[in-house]
Amino acid sequence: MSYELYYWDGLQGRGEFVRLALEEARADYIEVARGNEAQGLGTGAMLALLNSKREACPPFAPPFLRDGNLLISQTANILFYLGPKLGLAPADEGLRYVANGLQLTIADVVTEVHDTHHPLASGLYYEDQKDAAKIRAHDFIDNRIPKFMHYFERVITQNYQSDAHLVGDKLTYVDLSMFQLIDGLHYAFPRATRHFGEHYPLLAALHDAVAARPNIAAYLTSERRLAYNESGIFRHYPELDKAAR
Amino acid sequence: MSYELYYWDGLQGRGEFVRLALEEARADYIEVARGNEAQGLGTGAMLALLNSKREACPPFAPPFLRDGNLLISQTANILFYLGPKLGLAPADEGLRYVANGLQLTIADVVTEVHDTHHPLASGLYYEDQKDAAKIRAHDFIDNRIPKFMHYFERVITQNYQSDAHLVGDKLTYVDLSMFQLIDGLHYAFPRATRHFGEHYPLLAALHDAVAARPNIAAYLTSERRLAYNESGIFRHYPELDKAAR
Repeated sequence: MSYELYYWDGLQGRGEFVRLALEEARADYIEVARGNEAQGLGTGAMLALLNSKREACPPFAPPFLRDGNLLISQTANILFYLGPKLGLAPADEGLRYVANGLQLTIADVVTEVHDTHHPLASGLYYEDQKDAAKIRAHDFIDNRIPKFMHYFERVITQNYQSDAHLVGDKLTYVDLSMFQLIDGLHYAFPRATRHFGEHYPLLAALHDAVAARPNIAAYLTSERRLAYNESGIFRHYPELDKAAR
Repeated sequence: MSYELYYWDGLQGRGEFVRLALEEARADYIEVARGNEAQGLGTGAMLALLNSKREACPPFAPPFLRDGNLLISQTANILFYLGPKLGLAPADEGLRYVANGLQLTIADVVTEVHDTHHPLASGLYYEDQKDAAKIRAHDFIDNRIPKFMHYFERVITQNYQSDAHLVGDKLTYVDLSMFQLIDGLHYAFPRATRHFGEHYPLLAALHDAVAARPNIAAYLTSERRLAYNESGIFRHYPELDKAAR
């Protein structure tokens, strides 16, 4: 049976981290919110599930995944669940927790990226919090990107099993998510990331290696990969970008 | 062998969510950063591990847990790992992912609580971002607390196995974390939470039931439970508090 992925149509968002794992593994999955209403799919079907009064433990927000009777919410949790099934988790059980710790740290960065354009309230328009956004975005560029990226570069360096992967000796979903994080940062902050590869050579190499994998390369040029846009998490607002200090 | 819990001394912080699980289970654990330097413990020992150039996959930040050779970072990940060992996870494997999804949603609220006093930059003093903090905190009170708490109240309501627990038919670490979240919100925002029990009766009952459990009650009155303070995540700044709309 197909996995059912539930995420807002029209943007990559947090759903993209799950999509990359499903695409790399060529898993059979349905994008429910992008589907046809006549077939019981579409955004309405997703909202019905979110607002259901009968579902035991409805999700708080997309993305979520249905696998048979199981409804799993939260990006890192979905990947922790899918990883072993898709052959994208470390074989060693202990390392799976290491992978999950890294994935949750990536999730923390993603939340901080969101808050660069929405520092005061997620319910307010960007235009109504532009001044605060500029302060937060510049702090993100000067302090947070270096702190996180030095850390992740160090994780690859200290991974004694490989210098091409964050955890273990082969590709995991964490590498795929790191590709997306780096890729999104380049879209949102082209000036800040201009010298990314000089500062973080192993991360830059990981990004390029993931992009070149056959299944990922095919996905990235397909219609299933939506373009970055200013409804997503990674938004390019030139006034928030600046050269890294 | 004892579990080793690593977290900043002097505040509850995110470490408290792990502590409550260890205390409820009366597990054998060491608070490394609160320990004696002469015994190789203390904040220095924690920082040495964080900054180690040899450790495979060092953590990004506290809290983290050592269990034998395994070093596990990120609060929700630590609890996902410890839950079954401490008898605080659902027996059903599928429900463990449901529990983890809930725990990650609690973690999202905790991050938003932190950002009420640090909306612009985690590295700046609160005093230097007070005006922005007021806007973010009031939005949190008016919009985010209701959104999250209505959700969690609904999760208990729709849990067909119990009306006293978030997931499954017995206590899990998710219930313990929900206690801490509600308790911390009462400390930080006494005016906003004055009528909490009227709006969210099942959550209020869960909070009180957890506080009354013998091991938790003993812990809460022990010296191991640090008082809330303005170094932690839940900070009481009267100017950020207001009556809920």
